[in-house]
Amino acid sequence: MKIIDKINKALDDDRCFWSFEYFPPKTQVGVMNLYERIERMCKLGPLFIDVTWRWGGKSSDLTLELCSNSQTVYGVEANMHMTCTNTNFDLIKTALEKAKDQGVQNVLALRGDLPDGTVEFDPSVGEFKYAVDLVRYIRSTYGDYFCVAVAGYPEGCLGPEDVDRDIAFLKEKQDAGADLVVTQLFYDVDKYLAWVGKCRQAGITVPILPGIMPIQNYGAFKRMVELCRISVPQEIWDRLEPIKDDDQAIKDYGIDVAAAMIAQLRAAGVRGFHFYTINLERSTRLVLERLGLVAGVSDVRPLPWSPSLSEKRAGENVRPIFWRNHARSYVKRTELWDEFPNGRWGDARSPAYGELVHGVHVRLPAEQAQRKWGAPAGEADVADIFVRYCEGRLDSLPWSDSPLQPESAEIQARLARINAAGFLTINSQPSCNGAASSDKVHGWGPPNGFVYKKAYLEFFVSPARMRALLARLERSPTATYYAVNKAGDLFTNCAEDCPNAVTWGVFPGKEILQPTIVERVSFLAWKDEAFDFWNAWARVFDAASAPAALLTGIAADWYLMNIVENNFQAHPEAIFELFENLADESGVSAPPTALQQQQQ
Amino acid sequence: MKIIDKINKALDDDRCFWSFEYFPPKTQVGVMNLYERIERMCKLGPLFIDVTWRWGGKSSDLTLELCSNSQTVYGVEANMHMTCTNTNFDLIKTALEKAKDQGVQNVLALRGDLPDGTVEFDPSVGEFKYAVDLVRYIRSTYGDYFCVAVAGYPEGCLGPEDVDRDIAFLKEKQDAGADLVVTQLFYDVDKYLAWVGKCRQAGITVPILPGIMPIQNYGAFKRMVELCRISVPQEIWDRLEPIKDDDQAIKDYGIDVAAAMIAQLRAAGVRGFHFYTINLERSTRLVLERLGLVAGVSDVRPLPWSPSLSEKRAGENVRPIFWRNHARSYVKRTELWDEFPNGRWGDARSPAYGELVHGVHVRLPAEQAQRKWGAPAGEADVADIFVRYCEGRLDSLPWSDSPLQPESAEIQARLARINAAGFLTINSQPSCNGAASSDKVHGWGPPNGFVYKKAYLEFFVSPARMRALLARLERSPTATYYAVNKAGDLFTNCAEDCPNAVTWGVFPGKEILQPTIVERVSFLAWKDEAFDFWNAWARVFDAASAPAALLTGIAADWYLMNIVENNFQAHPEAIFELFENLADESGVSAPPTALQQQQQ
Repeated sequence: MKIIDKINKALDDDRCFWSFEYFPPKTQVGVMNLYERIERMCKLGPLFIDVTWRWGGKSSDLTLELCSNSQTVYGVEANMHMTCTNTNFDLIKTALEKAKDQGVQNVLALRGDLPDGTVEFDPSVGEFKYAVDLVRYIRSTYGDYFCVAVAGYPEGCLGPEDVDRDIAFLKEKQDAGADLVVTQLFYDVDKYLAWVGKCRQAGITVPILPGIMPIQNYGAFKRMVELCRISVPQEIWDRLEPIKDDDQAIKDYGIDVAAAMIAQLRAAGVRGFHFYTINLERSTRLVLERLGLVAGVSDVRPLPWSPSLSEKRAGENVRPIFWRNHARSYVKRTELWDEFPNGRWGDARSPAYGELVHGVHVRLPAEQAQRKWGAPAGEADVADIFVRYCEGRLDSLPWSDSPLQPESAEIQARLARINAAGFLTINSQPSCNGAASSDKVHGWGPPNGFVYKKAYLEFFVSPARMRALLARLERSPTATYYAVNKAGDLFTNCAEDCPNAVTWGVFPGKEILQPTIVERVSFLAWKDEAFDFWNAWARVFDAASAPAALLTGIAADWYLMNIVENNFQAHPEAIFELFENLADESGVSAPPTALQQQQQ
Repeated sequence: MKIIDKINKALDDDRCFWSFEYFPPKTQVGVMNLYERIERMCKLGPLFIDVTWRWGGKSSDLTLELCSNSQTVYGVEANMHMTCTNTNFDLIKTALEKAKDQGVQNVLALRGDLPDGTVEFDPSVGEFKYAVDLVRYIRSTYGDYFCVAVAGYPEGCLGPEDVDRDIAFLKEKQDAGADLVVTQLFYDVDKYLAWVGKCRQAGITVPILPGIMPIQNYGAFKRMVELCRISVPQEIWDRLEPIKDDDQAIKDYGIDVAAAMIAQLRAAGVRGFHFYTINLERSTRLVLERLGLVAGVSDVRPLPWSPSLSEKRAGENVRPIFWRNHARSYVKRTELWDEFPNGRWGDARSPAYGELVHGVHVRLPAEQAQRKWGAPAGEADVADIFVRYCEGRLDSLPWSDSPLQPESAEIQARLARINAAGFLTINSQPSCNGAASSDKVHGWGPPNGFVYKKAYLEFFVSPARMRALLARLERSPTATYYAVNKAGDLFTNCAEDCPNAVTWGVFPGKEILQPTIVERVSFLAWKDEAFDFWNAWARVFDAASAPAALLTGIAADWYLMNIVENNFQAHPEAIFELFENLADESGVSAPPTALQQQQQ
């Protein structure tokens, strides 16, 4: 959808909104980390995100990929930057076609940086001379398909002497069809507001979003404002000077400055704020929290997971629980499907999951990973890492880049206990017997509804412990399970092709929505990925090292198992009763074989 | 499915089972009443039903229709009788083809009655001389498709002198491919058991079901046993003699006899019992209840309504609530659909409901209907009829041939009160917040599940009262409604194409089942039928009479309305709060117009 429509709606409602700008990282690990960051920052409720553009090599493809994936995987609208000078017409044409193909509907049209080493701008290079040419081209070629944003320069594009000329250019860009203006960053709010007044006088009527960049580092800030010839109030310099070598103090002060600027802008009637995040998360989040803007955001969850903005996936309303912490991998592996599951998962043709696009990786450089998780010498050490994650003493695991979800707080102690006993959990949810859809922890979906969950546990387990657990499970009338090892030997008490809804919601005037399921086909697709994380973790160590052997050994021998306690009306800890005193029974040696499975 | 497979399964489980035999009635009203009866008697859990055959005119078509509809509408397996003599080969061929086409998979192959007035059987008439010829034809033509049953004559087909010859014939029929034997009725259990012994000695190994006919009437019983040359123990004659003019006493004694016979047969190891119902319900039901056989049956409800056995409808797992008391009409009106709704009602193509097959009728002759419901002189009299039905003082309404459903017991008093206030209910369900699936009143579906219902009311209402109610409804955040008059003016607060699940169930290892919904398209199809009942009721009276004018007037002016209280966690009477003291507000005169609807 076009962000101008969302902006106009927010302005009509007199509601504050914000957007985040990112740039394409240079390394593959950087890209993956940025995805995780975008996903997390989406919970701050940006109206849209921006991704900057750089021609040449894979950079421009990466911009488009980041935009398209953010829309498809995280359900956030993306605004794609595009520069038009010093490039050739065919490249621009192709890039716009690709954007349209992939459902990107927002472009920020820019003239572009000068070629490296050039001081003066040479308007004779390339078909497009100015941003306005790109605006005209987009409008004449695509009509209303794209929302076109353009850049505004409150302090002049090349310095204060150009301000008035730049306003005339801006008016020209509006007249050519631009829908909104995003401004260059600034630190002098009075000057900015005066500039907006001038723009309005000049007949610029489209929304103007001020660019806010929280100060992160003294040196970088100083170089940047000098390069862009941006005026900074003396008070800011005075406050920065004594703390310039204390990075943390600079960041904290940067938050103060940005929060104060936004407060002043709000008082002047401004409602939209564009954050230059420089791919950082903390400052932007703290500014929004400081201003109390984020509080109202998290309530609005149409489904327990982020629905895709991709038109192709519009009907999708159910997903397997397995990829809960790996939405991008799920979306990528299913993107070639013609039909996305829509509550009739059972009837869907056996879905062919695509290959993993970039394989499975630990999202930390080796030394950092070793520092965080240590070098496990045995299974007990591994279990201890999982226990510490459950107890909140570790903020990530190779399988999960975020801390334990808030909904799991109530089962945290029980989780830690079974991990200590050798059931290494990588996914879980407590049961929920009809919470209000507005519930802060469990809620999702429209108002006046009720949401439900069956208790779920997913964990790695040694063959011996699995065998003890299977004996327990045979006596449970309400628990269902799947267990599979890397080789694909499967144990289950579930019928084939029978998806189990583990999250559902009941709403006024609607069918029952059942957005999360457990079922065989997808579990078998997921298990390859899940086991691969052991090997990815092993690669943090020297291939010949003991920890590497330990981790790859677990991947080779253990089982990945999930259990659903179907009695969601029982108390949330009922599922853990299956594990009580189980260690005593698991002293058996021979692992079960696929033959035993056949006999079951 | 073949009943022999069901029988063998029951025998393997050492489980008692029973079947009911019906004959095609001579009148259309008789046929409709028989359908209602079959539906009710299906709740007694017969393993299958039989429908007898009579060649000529529409009788044989009717047999097939009764079989096919019972399978499709009531979900009970039907065994179609077919006689083969005194007819021609093409007719038999056609009849078998039709049966196969319509999914009937069970045939009872009979020689057939002698032509009227014939005393001796002439084996030279027709291609088939004996039942065994029909058995051979079916097997050679259809292989294993049909389950073929044949008749056994414990006292000889034409009398005791033929018993041994008939056993030889029976062996011949088994050897030709018959799967089971259903016997002629009898009253001497010792004699029957001796005959079975002889059959077994003669090498007859297929299951043999004894025919049980509870005595209903002295004269008819006497004629019948004389005609069929059936021996009746002297004790029975002695007990019948003194009560022979007391029909009720005869029936009661008939129940005693049948129950005692079955008890004796069970003691001898017999497990299956075939009831000759002569299209009557009470005696068969009471015999089964007396023996405690029905108790275990009603627990097994795969869905809240009876799933069809038709292969075409195999995927059907959701239906609109409107036809709850008119399943046959729903099935008939949807039988041309290519795809039956399967939980994705929302995605189904807008379904085109077929025309009503036989129109709408009051199931009582005019005088009886007048006696039961009186001659209403005004709206208050009409309301009183509905009130008496809700209070259990009337056992049927034109819209409903059965008393109020047991699940409605808890809201009976509230229902009566709103009917007294002029909201004439024809369908309702109380809310249910997660009862066990084994619950006697609300339960359905597999074990260890939980079932839910949203409170539902459907009623006729005058335009003025509707308007008062709409004002109330506007203030409710959780109630949704549809109201429509005969002309089609519609008022609703529901989005188009948004089905509301009003009954659902959560089961181990399964998707959420949501078998009953409320939605627009089907409500509009149902309303024509619902309004027609007023006119059908009016036809009970002289066309020019005051009651006829009153009833057709209501049909022309009033609205049919349904309300769902979506907060199923509220107490079951919450929906009735909408009606409290509403009469005071409904003194308004002008009915709402379709124009107002547009403005909403």
